[in-house]
Amino acid sequence: MMIVTMQPGASVAQIGAVLRHCQERDLRPVPSHGTERTVIGVIHADQRTDLSAVASLPGVDQVTPVSAALQLVSREFRDEPTVVHVGGVAIGGPEFVVMAGPCSVETEAQINACARQVGACGGRILRGGAYKPRTSPYSFQGLGEEGLQLLTAAGRAVGLPTVTEVMHPDLVETVARYADILQIGARNVQNYALLSAVGRVRKPVLLKRGLMTTIEELLMAAEYILAGGNGQVILCERGIRTFETSVRNTLDVSAVPVIKSQSHLPVILDPSHAAGKREFVPALALASLAAGADGIMVEMHPVPEEAYSDGRQSLDFPGFAALMDSLRPVGAALGRHVAAVRPDLTEASA
Amino acid sequence: MMIVTMQPGASVAQIGAVLRHCQERDLRPVPSHGTERTVIGVIHADQRTDLSAVASLPGVDQVTPVSAALQLVSREFRDEPTVVHVGGVAIGGPEFVVMAGPCSVETEAQINACARQVGACGGRILRGGAYKPRTSPYSFQGLGEEGLQLLTAAGRAVGLPTVTEVMHPDLVETVARYADILQIGARNVQNYALLSAVGRVRKPVLLKRGLMTTIEELLMAAEYILAGGNGQVILCERGIRTFETSVRNTLDVSAVPVIKSQSHLPVILDPSHAAGKREFVPALALASLAAGADGIMVEMHPVPEEAYSDGRQSLDFPGFAALMDSLRPVGAALGRHVAAVRPDLTEASA
Amino acid sequence: MMIVTMQPGASVAQIGAVLRHCQERDLRPVPSHGTERTVIGVIHADQRTDLSAVASLPGVDQVTPVSAALQLVSREFRDEPTVVHVGGVAIGGPEFVVMAGPCSVETEAQINACARQVGACGGRILRGGAYKPRTSPYSFQGLGEEGLQLLTAAGRAVGLPTVTEVMHPDLVETVARYADILQIGARNVQNYALLSAVGRVRKPVLLKRGLMTTIEELLMAAEYILAGGNGQVILCERGIRTFETSVRNTLDVSAVPVIKSQSHLPVILDPSHAAGKREFVPALALASLAAGADGIMVEMHPVPEEAYSDGRQSLDFPGFAALMDSLRPVGAALGRHVAAVRPDLTEASA
Amino acid sequence: MMIVTMQPGASVAQIGAVLRHCQERDLRPVPSHGTERTVIGVIHADQRTDLSAVASLPGVDQVTPVSAALQLVSREFRDEPTVVHVGGVAIGGPEFVVMAGPCSVETEAQINACARQVGACGGRILRGGAYKPRTSPYSFQGLGEEGLQLLTAAGRAVGLPTVTEVMHPDLVETVARYADILQIGARNVQNYALLSAVGRVRKPVLLKRGLMTTIEELLMAAEYILAGGNGQVILCERGIRTFETSVRNTLDVSAVPVIKSQSHLPVILDPSHAAGKREFVPALALASLAAGADGIMVEMHPVPEEAYSDGRQSLDFPGFAALMDSLRPVGAALGRHVAAVRPDLTEASA
Repeated sequence: MMIVTMQPGASVAQIGAVLRHCQERDLRPVPSHGTERTVIGVIHADQRTDLSAVASLPGVDQVTPVSAALQLVSREFRDEPTVVHVGGVAIGGPEFVVMAGPCSVETEAQINACARQVGACGGRILRGGAYKPRTSPYSFQGLGEEGLQLLTAAGRAVGLPTVTEVMHPDLVETVARYADILQIGARNVQNYALLSAVGRVRKPVLLKRGLMTTIEELLMAAEYILAGGNGQVILCERGIRTFETSVRNTLDVSAVPVIKSQSHLPVILDPSHAAGKREFVPALALASLAAGADGIMVEMHPVPEEAYSDGRQSLDFPGFAALMDSLRPVGAALGRHVAAVRPDLTEASA
Repeated sequence: MMIVTMQPGASVAQIGAVLRHCQERDLRPVPSHGTERTVIGVIHADQRTDLSAVASLPGVDQVTPVSAALQLVSREFRDEPTVVHVGGVAIGGPEFVVMAGPCSVETEAQINACARQVGACGGRILRGGAYKPRTSPYSFQGLGEEGLQLLTAAGRAVGLPTVTEVMHPDLVETVARYADILQIGARNVQNYALLSAVGRVRKPVLLKRGLMTTIEELLMAAEYILAGGNGQVILCERGIRTFETSVRNTLDVSAVPVIKSQSHLPVILDPSHAAGKREFVPALALASLAAGADGIMVEMHPVPEEAYSDGRQSLDFPGFAALMDSLRPVGAALGRHVAAVRPDLTEASA
Repeated sequence: MMIVTMQPGASVAQIGAVLRHCQERDLRPVPSHGTERTVIGVIHADQRTDLSAVASLPGVDQVTPVSAALQLVSREFRDEPTVVHVGGVAIGGPEFVVMAGPCSVETEAQINACARQVGACGGRILRGGAYKPRTSPYSFQGLGEEGLQLLTAAGRAVGLPTVTEVMHPDLVETVARYADILQIGARNVQNYALLSAVGRVRKPVLLKRGLMTTIEELLMAAEYILAGGNGQVILCERGIRTFETSVRNTLDVSAVPVIKSQSHLPVILDPSHAAGKREFVPALALASLAAGADGIMVEMHPVPEEAYSDGRQSLDFPGFAALMDSLRPVGAALGRHVAAVRPDLTEASA
Repeated sequence: MMIVTMQPGASVAQIGAVLRHCQERDLRPVPSHGTERTVIGVIHADQRTDLSAVASLPGVDQVTPVSAALQLVSREFRDEPTVVHVGGVAIGGPEFVVMAGPCSVETEAQINACARQVGACGGRILRGGAYKPRTSPYSFQGLGEEGLQLLTAAGRAVGLPTVTEVMHPDLVETVARYADILQIGARNVQNYALLSAVGRVRKPVLLKRGLMTTIEELLMAAEYILAGGNGQVILCERGIRTFETSVRNTLDVSAVPVIKSQSHLPVILDPSHAAGKREFVPALALASLAAGADGIMVEMHPVPEEAYSDGRQSLDFPGFAALMDSLRPVGAALGRHVAAVRPDLTEASA
C-alpha cells in the first residue's frame, strides 16, 4: 500500500484527478477526508507498480510507501475518529447511540410496537432480524424479504433508521435496498466473500466480533471492508467465548479502550447477546457507556417469553424504558449525550 | 422430522416410491442405506403435515415422528459408521487415510512434486489450497481456478483424489467440477449459506471444526449439510483456541472418542494446523491414530521455508516419508491399515 | 447443614445459648445477624447428628435441614448485603471504595509517598505487597515482615487501613498482626489449607478470583472461609484468562451482576491486573463503578518505570488523581459516593 | 544463576569441594550428574556475589554466568532426559509406566483390592488420595493419615511404590514418611510455599499442571522445586480448561512434544481427570502413549458407581485390564515397554 498525502489546500478537482489517475491504472484509491487535509490510501496488488508519477500530480504533498502492517483501519492511517452518519444519527461522535429492537421480526404488530417503544424511550436505531443464522437447521430462520419490508416500514413510521443482518453475498443487494445499516453477524466475521461484498456497497456496515475473534482479527476483518472502498464501518463487541458459564458469553469491555487506541472506527457493545439473561443487561449497558463505547445494541420484545428466538435475553418494554432512564444521568456525567424521551410517541402510546 | 423405516426386504422400487411420494409433497427425504434395511429421514418444515399416508406405502415398516433434538448426524438415526468413498479410497472404514499436500497450490512443479511424494509414501488424498481464506486482505489469496486445474492434474497423474477448500456459495459449482472432496474451512463452519450450498452437491464434504466451535455446534453444522441431502460428510478437528500459546492451537484429541460416541460420521484430525510447528506434527499424528481417528490431514512442502503460506508447520519430503513409516507399525498394532509405499512412484523419483 | 432461625425478638442470651449448645456437641454454628432476626447456619460433619434438641431451645423459631447445595455465601442463606467494616470504611454499602497503592512495598519513602497520595485523592484503603507470589523463583519476592511494618506505618500516618497478601498458612498470624485486610491471591484461590487458615481469623479477607476460576468455584472458595467462622469476605474479580492477548487478562465485568444475584458478599474489581497496561485502567475503573461493583483496587507507583514489579500497569500519581476525579461525578449519577479529596494531605504535599 | 562445568574426569571429592565452597557462602548449588561430566547450577540471591573464586577450584572446567531466563528445568541446563527412579521403577526411560488406583482411599478392603488389580495387570505405581482437595468444604475430604497407612500397606503387600497428594506445607513431612512419590495437585501448582517445601525433600515429586497453567508456568513451578534442591520431578498434564464441555477438561496432548522440546523432565498424562467419563479414557490413554508420554495415571475403582469421589471417570477392574492389554502392542510398535501381567497376583485373585 501507499499513502498519498494531499496539500492542506488541495482542491476537490485535484483530489479527483489523483483518484482517476489511480483507477485508470487498476489501483484502488481509498480517500479519507480529514479536517485539515485529505489522505488517500492506494492499494496495489502488484508490488512492482511504479507510483512515482502520482507524486508529481498537482496538489500532492508527498507519497509514502507503507508496509503491509499499516492498515486503513489504524490510527496511523487516520488519527481523527470516524463518525458514521445514518438518517440524522451520528455514531462515533458525542452522542451515545442506543440501537434496539427484537431479535427477529415476527409480525407487523410486533415490530411496529417495538419501533414505537424504541423511539419513545430515546433509542435511535431500530434493529430486527429478517434472515437469522441459527445453529440448528431446524430452528426458525426468519421471515426473509417480508421481514425486511416490515422492519423498514416500522422504522420509517417513527423516524428510525434500521439495521439488520445480511448472511449471504447474494443477498447484500436486497438487504441494502431496505436497511440503513448492514449487519455482519459474529459467525460471519471471517467470511471473506461476504466482507468483500459489503465493501462494495455504499451503506454503513455494523461488523460484529466473533465469539472466537481476537481484536487484531476483528480489525483485519474490518480492513477487508475498508479495502473494498467502504469506510463506514461500526465495530461491535458482543461477548467472547470463555470458560465461564454463568453468562452466555463474557462481554469484553476492555475491547473498547483497546480498539480506540488502535483504530479510528466507532465501537459499540451488545450486552444482550453477551449476558444471555435480561437481568444482567442493565449493569453491562451502563458499563459499556462508562468504558467509552459509542453506543449499545440491545434486544427488546413486547412479550419476551413468547419470542421466537433469544427471549431469555430480551428486555420487556418497561425494562427498556428503565434502562434508557438510567443511562442519561451517567452519560451526562461522562459528557455523552443520550437522546431524550420523545413525547410525540410516548403520548400516542398512552 | 420423521423417520420412515423400510422393511428388511424392501425393494429399490419401493424405496424410490417413498422418496417420490415425499418430494411431490415438498418434503425432503434423506435415505440412509444400512446393511439390513433402509431408513429414510423426512424433513418437513410445517409441523402440521399429515404423514400418515406414508405409513401405508408398500415396503414401509413403520413411521416414527421424532423430536427436533434427533438429528441425521446422530447415532440414534444411524448406528452403523458412515464410510465415505472417493476414487477408490474408503474413509471411515478399517483404513487410516492420510491426506497430504501443500497449504497453497503455488506452481505446477510444486504441486506435481507434492503429489508424487504423497502417493509414493502411502498418502491417499492430495490436498492443496486454490482459494485461501486469509486474515489480512493483503496476503496471498491463492491461484483460484488455475490452482484447481493444477491440483486436479497433479492428483490424476499419480492416481490420487483431491480435496480443496471452497469459500463462497457461488464457487461451489466450480470447485465441485475439479475437486473430489469439497473442504469447508474452520472460519466458515457456521456460514450457513455455504453449508446449505454444499448440502445440495453430490460430492463428499470435509467439514473443519472452527477454532472455537463446540462439538455440539460442529455436529449441528454437519446437520445443515445432511439436511440438504448430502450424507457424505467427513468431520475434521484442527485445533481449538485456548489460553496455551506454545502451539498455534490445542489439538483436541478427545474430540475423536466424543464424536464417535455421538455420530456415525468419520472423523479425521489435522495436526499441522493445530501444532503450527512441524516438529510437533509427528507426535500429534501418532496420537490421532491411537485415539481412533479415521485419518489425518497434514501439510507438506518441497521447501517449507519458501512456502507462500504456513511454511512453519509444513513437513518437508523426508519428514513426511518418516512420518508415514512411523504410522504403519502403530496402525498394525491397532488393527488399522496404513497404505504401503508405492514402488512405481518411489523408483521414478529416484 | 442446618439453618436455625431465631424468633424476631430473641435475646442475645438466647442466641448465645444456641451457639454454646452447638459448640458443646462439636457442631460449628455460624451466626448471621440481620436487621430483623438472627439466623444461624450449623455445620455438622456427621449426617446422622440429631438436631431436634436445638428446636426446643428458647428463642428458636424453626430448624430447617438444608441440602449441601445451600451455602453460607448464598442469598438464600442471607438476603441482605454483607457490609465489611474496617477502620471506619464500609465496603458493600453506598460508598464506592477505592483501594490503591504499589504492587510491592519497596522502600519507606516509596510507600509513604503512595500512602499520602492515595489518601489525598480520596482513596480509602492502602494496598502494598510484602510477600509476592512470583511465577519465577528468581524474581523479587518482596520485603517480607519488614514490608508489613513499612506498609502499616505508612497507612497509619495518613489514617488508611491496609490490605496485603498472605501466601502461606504459617504466615497468617504474622500478617494479621499488621494488616487490616488479608488478601488471598488469585493463585491461591483453591489453596484450601490457606482458606481454612484465614477462616479462623477475625479480620476481613479479600479473596481474589483465579485466572480460570468460575464464579461458582470462587463462591465455593469463599464458602471455606465462611464455614471456618469468618464472614467478613470481600470478593475481587481481577481478569480471567481468555484467548485475547491485547490485554493481560479479560476483566469479567459481568461477574458483578452475576455474583450480586447469587451472593450477599461485596464485590470489587481490579482493573490494573486485568488490563496489564495503565492506559486502559481508567476506562475499566469507570466500567466497574457503572456495573455496580462496591469498589476497585488499583496499582499506583511514584515512578512506574522503576517499579520492582508490575510497573507497566501502575498509574503514576497524576494519573491516579485524574482517575479519582473522573469517578466522582459518575458515582454521583449512580447514587454511589466516592470520597472527596483530603485538603490536609493535599496541601501538605504541595 | 551461574553454571559451574566440571572437567570430564573430575573426582567425587572435587565435586564435593565445590558444593561445600558454595554452601559456606550461602549459595545454593544444584548438581546434575551427566554421563560425561557433572554440571552445577549455583543460585545466588545477591547479583553482586563474586564467583571468581569458584573458577580456580580443582576440577572446575569453566564458570558461566547465565541470565535469569535459563532454568534448571531446561534442556540448555541438562540435555539428557532425567530418569526418576522409585522402588525399582524408572520413569522417563524406555518403559511406559502406568500409575493407577482409586481417586480416594476409602477402606482397607477397597485399597487392597485395587493394589492387587493394578499389580496383576502390569501397573507399576499405586495411586490413592488420603487428603483430598475439594471445591466444596462440605465434600468428603479424605481419610488423612489413616489413608496414608492403608495406601502404603496395600502397595507394599504387592510390591508397588505409591503416590499420593500433599496439600499443605505442614503435611509434607508426614506424607513423605509414607508415600514414595509426593503429588502436588493441579490447584496448588502455583502454591509457592508448598513447592518450596517439597523442594527440600529427598523424594520424587509428581507435579500436576493446573487447569489454567501454561506450559511455561508449569516449568517455572517445577523450577521452584529444582531450585530448592530436588531434581526428581515428574510433570503431569491432566486436562486444561477450555470452552468445550463434552469432556471435563481438554487433554492437551501437544504438551508432551512441547515439554520434551524444552525440558529434560519426564512427562505423564492423566486421561481420567481430563475425560471425566470412563468411556473416553482408553482412547486418550493410547493417544498419550503414541504422543511420547513417559506414562499415564488412571483412576480405577472396584465399584465405580459407589466411589466417594470421581466415580464417573474411574475404570472398573475389567476395564483397567482391557486398557493394559491394549497398550502393550502399541507400546511395542513404538519401542516402549509396558509391563506384563503378573501371574503371581492374577492367579491368587482367581
